[in-house]
Amino acid sequence: MPAERHATMIDGETLADLIAVARGRKPAELCLKNARLINVWTGDVLCRDLAVHRGRFAGWGTYQGLQEMALNGAYVAPGFIDAHLHLESTLLCAEEFAAAVVPHGTTAVVLDPHEIANVLGLRGVRALMQSCEGLPVDFFFTLPSCVPAASLDPSGAVLRGSDLQTLRGHARVLGLAEMMNFPGVLAMDAEVLDKIVLFQDTSMDGHCPGLQGLDLNAYIACGLHSDHETTALEEAREKLAKGLALMIREGSQSKDLAALLDAVTDTTWPRCLFVSDDRHPTDLLREGHMDAIVNRAMALGMDPVRALTLASWNPAQLFGLRRRGALAPGYMADFSVSPTLRPWNPVMVFKDGRLVARDGRLCTPIATRKDQLMKTLESPMAVQHVDPHRFRVPAAGRELRVIGLREGSLITDHLILPATVQDGWAVCDPSRDLLKMVVFNRYADPDAFNQPAVGFVQGFGLKEGALASTVAHDAHHLVAVGASDDAIGYAVRAVVESRGGLSVSDSKGIIAHMPLPLAGLMSVEPLDRVCGALEEVTRAAHALGSTLQHPFMALSFLALPVIPALKMSSRGLVDVERFEIVPLFV
Amino acid sequence: MPAERHATMIDGETLADLIAVARGRKPAELCLKNARLINVWTGDVLCRDLAVHRGRFAGWGTYQGLQEMALNGAYVAPGFIDAHLHLESTLLCAEEFAAAVVPHGTTAVVLDPHEIANVLGLRGVRALMQSCEGLPVDFFFTLPSCVPAASLDPSGAVLRGSDLQTLRGHARVLGLAEMMNFPGVLAMDAEVLDKIVLFQDTSMDGHCPGLQGLDLNAYIACGLHSDHETTALEEAREKLAKGLALMIREGSQSKDLAALLDAVTDTTWPRCLFVSDDRHPTDLLREGHMDAIVNRAMALGMDPVRALTLASWNPAQLFGLRRRGALAPGYMADFSVSPTLRPWNPVMVFKDGRLVARDGRLCTPIATRKDQLMKTLESPMAVQHVDPHRFRVPAAGRELRVIGLREGSLITDHLILPATVQDGWAVCDPSRDLLKMVVFNRYADPDAFNQPAVGFVQGFGLKEGALASTVAHDAHHLVAVGASDDAIGYAVRAVVESRGGLSVSDSKGIIAHMPLPLAGLMSVEPLDRVCGALEEVTRAAHALGSTLQHPFMALSFLALPVIPALKMSSRGLVDVERFEIVPLFV
Repeated sequence: MPAERHATMIDGETLADLIAVARGRKPAELCLKNARLINVWTGDVLCRDLAVHRGRFAGWGTYQGLQEMALNGAYVAPGFIDAHLHLESTLLCAEEFAAAVVPHGTTAVVLDPHEIANVLGLRGVRALMQSCEGLPVDFFFTLPSCVPAASLDPSGAVLRGSDLQTLRGHARVLGLAEMMNFPGVLAMDAEVLDKIVLFQDTSMDGHCPGLQGLDLNAYIACGLHSDHETTALEEAREKLAKGLALMIREGSQSKDLAALLDAVTDTTWPRCLFVSDDRHPTDLLREGHMDAIVNRAMALGMDPVRALTLASWNPAQLFGLRRRGALAPGYMADFSVSPTLRPWNPVMVFKDGRLVARDGRLCTPIATRKDQLMKTLESPMAVQHVDPHRFRVPAAGRELRVIGLREGSLITDHLILPATVQDGWAVCDPSRDLLKMVVFNRYADPDAFNQPAVGFVQGFGLKEGALASTVAHDAHHLVAVGASDDAIGYAVRAVVESRGGLSVSDSKGIIAHMPLPLAGLMSVEPLDRVCGALEEVTRAAHALGSTLQHPFMALSFLALPVIPALKMSSRGLVDVERFEIVPLFV
Repeated sequence: MPAERHATMIDGETLADLIAVARGRKPAELCLKNARLINVWTGDVLCRDLAVHRGRFAGWGTYQGLQEMALNGAYVAPGFIDAHLHLESTLLCAEEFAAAVVPHGTTAVVLDPHEIANVLGLRGVRALMQSCEGLPVDFFFTLPSCVPAASLDPSGAVLRGSDLQTLRGHARVLGLAEMMNFPGVLAMDAEVLDKIVLFQDTSMDGHCPGLQGLDLNAYIACGLHSDHETTALEEAREKLAKGLALMIREGSQSKDLAALLDAVTDTTWPRCLFVSDDRHPTDLLREGHMDAIVNRAMALGMDPVRALTLASWNPAQLFGLRRRGALAPGYMADFSVSPTLRPWNPVMVFKDGRLVARDGRLCTPIATRKDQLMKTLESPMAVQHVDPHRFRVPAAGRELRVIGLREGSLITDHLILPATVQDGWAVCDPSRDLLKMVVFNRYADPDAFNQPAVGFVQGFGLKEGALASTVAHDAHHLVAVGASDDAIGYAVRAVVESRGGLSVSDSKGIIAHMPLPLAGLMSVEPLDRVCGALEEVTRAAHALGSTLQHPFMALSFLALPVIPALKMSSRGLVDVERFEIVPLFV
């Protein structure tokens, strides 16, 4: 991997200047006086002056600066590093994400852009990477290892090992993204092993929920270095003992911190770190980012300095990010200032030695590239001729397979229910909470006859209207659920026109709409507007009768054909346990 | 840095085979049954089977092997890694060094070949690196940063930053060797900073005894990542707090372990590791290598697993040596077996999954390249016409500057003593322990008139005869001390003829001689013979009246013009405090 990802290389003149300042021979550009410095190597907190110069720490001790800030004992910690995050889960583009997280003390993140990759392939990944440049957060990347996620449902791209290899030399690429296909690893699937062989000398993230014993050995033997899917204590201990760094995930979907706290001991702590994995915009807005995780850990009893270390030095160490994650001479001057140790409240945030956020707000200009981004990340949308007649289901039997939604779970039931038949058609029946679900393959050849897959689902609770979305893990086809064909048509057309998004229609037309023009997954709006729009579409779905707390979340997982038991794909209904397409009627 | 240094890359077929074995689907090549496994990440010891296959660990748990060894609860630890060693201090060539240390559980070392570099430049470093290939120890290298060590006395080479850069891409090169010239760093010497700027994205070792406060900040700000010159506890704590990894040196010359033990805490231990720095052949023979350090640490009270971790995982982690330093699936199968935890007694040693040593002896063939090595590392020897008349000193005054030796110290006194004059010559006077010292520049143009520098020294105690040596830090000129010009002549001629070595003469001729034909620094003999020869020359020196315990050690430091107060160089007597050549007579 090239050197630049570690830290910008400095030249001799800068180095000489840094030496002179560190020695106290000339004032630093900035000196924070009387700062309580978090030490990630000793576990101590020492009150000293902190000299910042040319984007680096010159040192701590007694110093003077051209600019001085009297911290009066306020605390300084290294900038937080989120070592595993799917940006797409935030619904934000990179610049808005930066604006959202920098005020929370985050100065670097490692992204796995597999959602973008599923929609737009390597081209999309490159566009995303480009959009991440020049922001007050340093973005690093792992290359998506499982695109498509499952062979049953084609997504927008196929990324082979050889394709990933073409991006390997990028300055910000750290290695291979989470190898979710652990069954494929254990089965020694040649194309899975290709990727591992190609990337064996890089950082390779693991993903192996529940894997243990000999199978866990085999998985780790491939060289995977981490896991963020650990939910139980004994599982964590076994993984740590066998060489996986424990990425303690405290995200929006999954919260493992409380369960795993005791896995962090005086011996294992260097191999533990906090990650988000996913972070919904609402949680970003209300709670924050890594600061929220750190504070939760402290509240659960973790030593404060240790908690801060798990969010800074440990991720830097795991990924070999040089000169990051500590307050030390020569290190990059990425840090936050908090009046209290517990909780950590980053009232000032610095990146490369410059103040970038104060009192929860960005205070540095960010170059905006949204126009460019809406072109480079324009969503494939092969969906045309949205004709509700295409959703009609001839009544080919008496009983239907119906996807049975379970609130708050990714698992669905494989229900067999009598169809409601009208004029020879099997129709929606809101009185029984029997709604139609359609899946359009938006990557299909636009000249081909564009026919959605149609099925039925129980559990949404809509009395009328429909919901449509282009966020549908993992292939991100255009999915919709509704109480009538017409309503489905309105909802689908709205997201087609906005090149992606979430929409709500009633029986007459659109009542709420949130465009997601970047790959159909992300907005160009700032965080507060995104949260507002999300609230709006959710409220609209509730007004239509949906009993689910998060109806669009539920919708986004209905087309995920790797979690049991019955799911929808662009090719039809999928019996996940038998891993095959099954007919609608039994 | 290229990938190969981390571990040999494995191909898909090997990986698939490893997976199958790890899963227990087929027997491993080798299975150690009921092994107590040292875990460097949890601090635990678990009794399990350890499966070894294709040079890697497949995993631990319950396993079968084509070959099985019942360990019956014997302990297994990862192979030891000496992260900082000057091979030249052992007087052994690489193959004999391997034969000496492998039975002690050492499976990797990081060498700083600055002695060889001072004698033979980059050419010599390359020859050394080549001689280290294909041995049952993995040799890694840092590139000597301070050649020559001091500008007052030219050595065999000058290595500029640009020269070092030409070797940077070598698979086994890890970075820049100990930057001893910390004054040059603080003074922002352009050629010193050159090297730091060129190697800033690599591992750069530090060397800063006694450096503290702001100057320590400046030194660390350059990116140096370690220090092995720490001798006091508070010094260690400051260095750890500021970002230096603490290389706890327990060598032959310096033993810092006892003083630094308390620096290793539950928070700092990940940044601490054991190193040798130098290891004399006698200590290698009698005590061992890293095993001796580990056992000393245990005896001083360090937790055994922690001690073993500081000799295996921590050095691997510091230098980014992938898949090394732990017993984990996919890691290189380098390990030793001991019947006891305390002390560690490596009765079996494995490298890449093969048994290489048993009961203190190598049991694997080593390719020998000594003939080749005697050519590629042939010592420069511009010394010709060894005519004792060249050592004569006209009596140009009444009082002489005399180097006053202090037993056991590198520091000398700057004495002013009356000369003993005979026939107009200032002569040796053993009755006053006033001996002559000569220094031949062995790198000089051989056609030039070859005149040694001549001085006087007190403290050797020889009644007659002379000692000569080509080990003379740092420039490694040919140095000799003697009670008469003729004896000096005999001794010098002997080491000229053997192209380097240590010799002892009496007034009639040679009485003991140890050739060091590799750069004048190293022998081609095995360890026991080297120790025997060392004993012989030392005994001979004692028989001639020398009162010093280690006369050749003392001789090797008399020409080191960076340690006060009066030293000899090939250009004459050096007043170290004034850093200039001074006349013999006051």
